[in-house]
Amino acid sequence: MAATLTNKSSSSRMRTLNRALESGALNQVSRMLNHTLSRAELGHLLESSPPRTRKILWELLDKKRQSKILPFLGDELIADVLRDMSAEEVADVTVDGDIDIDDAVDILQVLPEKVTQDVLNVMDDQNRQRVEAILSYPEDTAGGLMNTDTVTIRADITLDVVLRYLRRHESIPATTDNLIVVNRKDELIGLLPISILLVSDPSITVREIMETDFHRITADTPDDQVAQLFEREDLVTAPVVDGNGKLLGRITIDDVVDVIREDADHSLMSMAGLDEEDDIFAPVFKTSRRRAVWLGINLLTAFLASAVIGMFEATLEKVVALAILMPIVASMGGIAGSQTLTLVIRGIATGHIRNNNLSWLLSREILVGLINGLLWGSAVAITAALWFSDITIGFIIGGALLINLVIAVFSGSMLPSLLKSMNIDPALAGSVLLTTITDVVGYLVFLGMATLFYNLA
Amino acid sequence: MAATLTNKSSSSRMRTLNRALESGALNQVSRMLNHTLSRAELGHLLESSPPRTRKILWELLDKKRQSKILPFLGDELIADVLRDMSAEEVADVTVDGDIDIDDAVDILQVLPEKVTQDVLNVMDDQNRQRVEAILSYPEDTAGGLMNTDTVTIRADITLDVVLRYLRRHESIPATTDNLIVVNRKDELIGLLPISILLVSDPSITVREIMETDFHRITADTPDDQVAQLFEREDLVTAPVVDGNGKLLGRITIDDVVDVIREDADHSLMSMAGLDEEDDIFAPVFKTSRRRAVWLGINLLTAFLASAVIGMFEATLEKVVALAILMPIVASMGGIAGSQTLTLVIRGIATGHIRNNNLSWLLSREILVGLINGLLWGSAVAITAALWFSDITIGFIIGGALLINLVIAVFSGSMLPSLLKSMNIDPALAGSVLLTTITDVVGYLVFLGMATLFYNLA
Repeated sequence: MAATLTNKSSSSRMRTLNRALESGALNQVSRMLNHTLSRAELGHLLESSPPRTRKILWELLDKKRQSKILPFLGDELIADVLRDMSAEEVADVTVDGDIDIDDAVDILQVLPEKVTQDVLNVMDDQNRQRVEAILSYPEDTAGGLMNTDTVTIRADITLDVVLRYLRRHESIPATTDNLIVVNRKDELIGLLPISILLVSDPSITVREIMETDFHRITADTPDDQVAQLFEREDLVTAPVVDGNGKLLGRITIDDVVDVIREDADHSLMSMAGLDEEDDIFAPVFKTSRRRAVWLGINLLTAFLASAVIGMFEATLEKVVALAILMPIVASMGGIAGSQTLTLVIRGIATGHIRNNNLSWLLSREILVGLINGLLWGSAVAITAALWFSDITIGFIIGGALLINLVIAVFSGSMLPSLLKSMNIDPALAGSVLLTTITDVVGYLVFLGMATLFYNLA
Repeated sequence: MAATLTNKSSSSRMRTLNRALESGALNQVSRMLNHTLSRAELGHLLESSPPRTRKILWELLDKKRQSKILPFLGDELIADVLRDMSAEEVADVTVDGDIDIDDAVDILQVLPEKVTQDVLNVMDDQNRQRVEAILSYPEDTAGGLMNTDTVTIRADITLDVVLRYLRRHESIPATTDNLIVVNRKDELIGLLPISILLVSDPSITVREIMETDFHRITADTPDDQVAQLFEREDLVTAPVVDGNGKLLGRITIDDVVDVIREDADHSLMSMAGLDEEDDIFAPVFKTSRRRAVWLGINLLTAFLASAVIGMFEATLEKVVALAILMPIVASMGGIAGSQTLTLVIRGIATGHIRNNNLSWLLSREILVGLINGLLWGSAVAITAALWFSDITIGFIIGGALLINLVIAVFSGSMLPSLLKSMNIDPALAGSVLLTTITDVVGYLVFLGMATLFYNLA
């Protein structure tokens, strides 16, 4: 009995493996890779290995096992691994009986379109049709998420017949919580939960106990809406239908969990200009190139802020205290704005914020900005006045802080839906735009007010 | 047949409800709330309503229905709602037959300890024992996540007996993908997947086909490890045992999905100083108070940066161009550092980054910092030299940018595990500390180098 007490022995296996790797005991490593570790553990190990280790591990794997762990790898790693394979090899690997058809399609979607075509051409007809059926839906819809491994029954048979029918199967998918009831035209008409089947009198018919009140997901439903539905209704699987109610396949919770994880990670990573699909152990030059673009965009906004400051060169020459204090105004605006921005981006993603409650949120955020602007504006005003023994500078910085905070929370509230309506990803563009606004407004208001108050214009 | 074509009709129901609310047709609203909308839809509606609307909606709900939607509300909303109830009422609501025992415990855990005690005191013995069993485990462990609704069988009976035994039940939990096999001492010895039970010959015994190679989760396993296990192994349910292997309960995927969502949201929200449990429609003063603390902390770091700039007052008085350019150095450091910080925080949370690969990552990040520092440092150097017709200022800002970028990525790589080893949440403290470092280093290096180069010291 290969019992394992939680992850503890999983992580102890990982430690043994790492020791074996470090000491160069490749025979032992190979044995562990091909026999001891589960496919999921292997996928995790490869994902968390630097490139060189990863290459060694991969080459120690049996060919057959290589293919089986593909569904456990990230997109970028899959692309790396399949790059050197021929179309025939890729076809072998992806429609191998051990991989779900939806996983195979996910893998194919990582490849360049030309390669996918080549792979489809060498598949047998049946497999090609199954793959093409799913490939025809965008990856981020219910159609792209679904699997075609449904177990269907008719409504007019008794449960006893259902049980005998099931027993004629070699196996049914592990994640089967409902049998799907269809009519002669293959239209979805009900669900028979296994938990009901098991406790019911075998002589009654499916129609008498099947459920008819459930969500019918159409193939074109966006995947984030599917995820929200699963999350809200605690679903394990759900059938997918076409526009006419004909059964196409079903979605299982494990694929939905991936959507939820990717969706949440996307907001976090995009706000820092990162891509959640990126391999975190990508080599130096690949990583540098990606980061360079983001830094370049931010450099432009930094120069814009400098240009604003440059407009007030004469003022700064006369009152050097302004140069010392000005970063405070910009930075506090950035912090307040990014709080609101983060809140609104998450609220939109979870469906809690919609157009009909955004105006309430906007007024609350502006009030919150006003209150905190008055509070911290006063604190900064007093500190600055004491520091430079100058009441005027206190008034200027307090006022500038208040104005910048209100504009920051206003921008943070409005930017996400504005960007979304322009089909721009708010998580990606929001934080850059917001910082630009809070920097420009911060310096402009502070130095502008100073120029007026000190009569330096 | 109350068929619904995906969320479309759900959102159309929501629109109808909103129209009814706006026109004051409270009878229609009440009918929809109590009959048309699902519990999950109701929970979502309340979560996304501003306070006043929320109060109206809540009061239109039947008492019985109020209790049933509690598991679909966030912690803060639950606390709000239960505040005005007596211990008896809370007990009625939480151990009501329609709420899973783990959901009831989640609700009780939101309440102050004193109130929870009062509620336990008015429960009957059986319910109290069940609730106390789960309450005895911390909320963020497998024990706190688990439910006690297991269906157990013995190993030596035939499948036919199992099927007949199940039929004697009124019902079994909907999310039952495995029957749990225990011995006389209630120790977990195997799992019988329903999908195997349904396709197997009824005359064979459980022992012959039960699975024995699976993860045994102990009650003290942290919930994020449980989530990683479910995610990696595509589990739907998993049994929980005590230190001696005795069965305690089971964890279901719907609760794990909540952990995954909260865990991912936590990183995003904490980095902006927000709490993922906060009600996004909380009233103005509650929100202001929370935000004020975060702004106050950031104000301290902003003053620290100002103090650093203040050290170079004499230099700034003589070369005002420095004041114009200095935000560029600080801001680019902040951007580069937060990219690395975000990457490492997510990598640690998903288990991809551990101590044994952190050093590889650190060297890569430093190389990436160097490359981008050289690239954008040169670009900034040339621009600044041309702008102010001064080659010296170009050298100074280019060098300062390079140094700040390298220190930023170094800090971003090291801070998360350092903070974690001190039991401080990296997502919460990381971004503040990082900005402090990149601001202080940025201004110090840039203005310090300028003071030396212009011989102003």
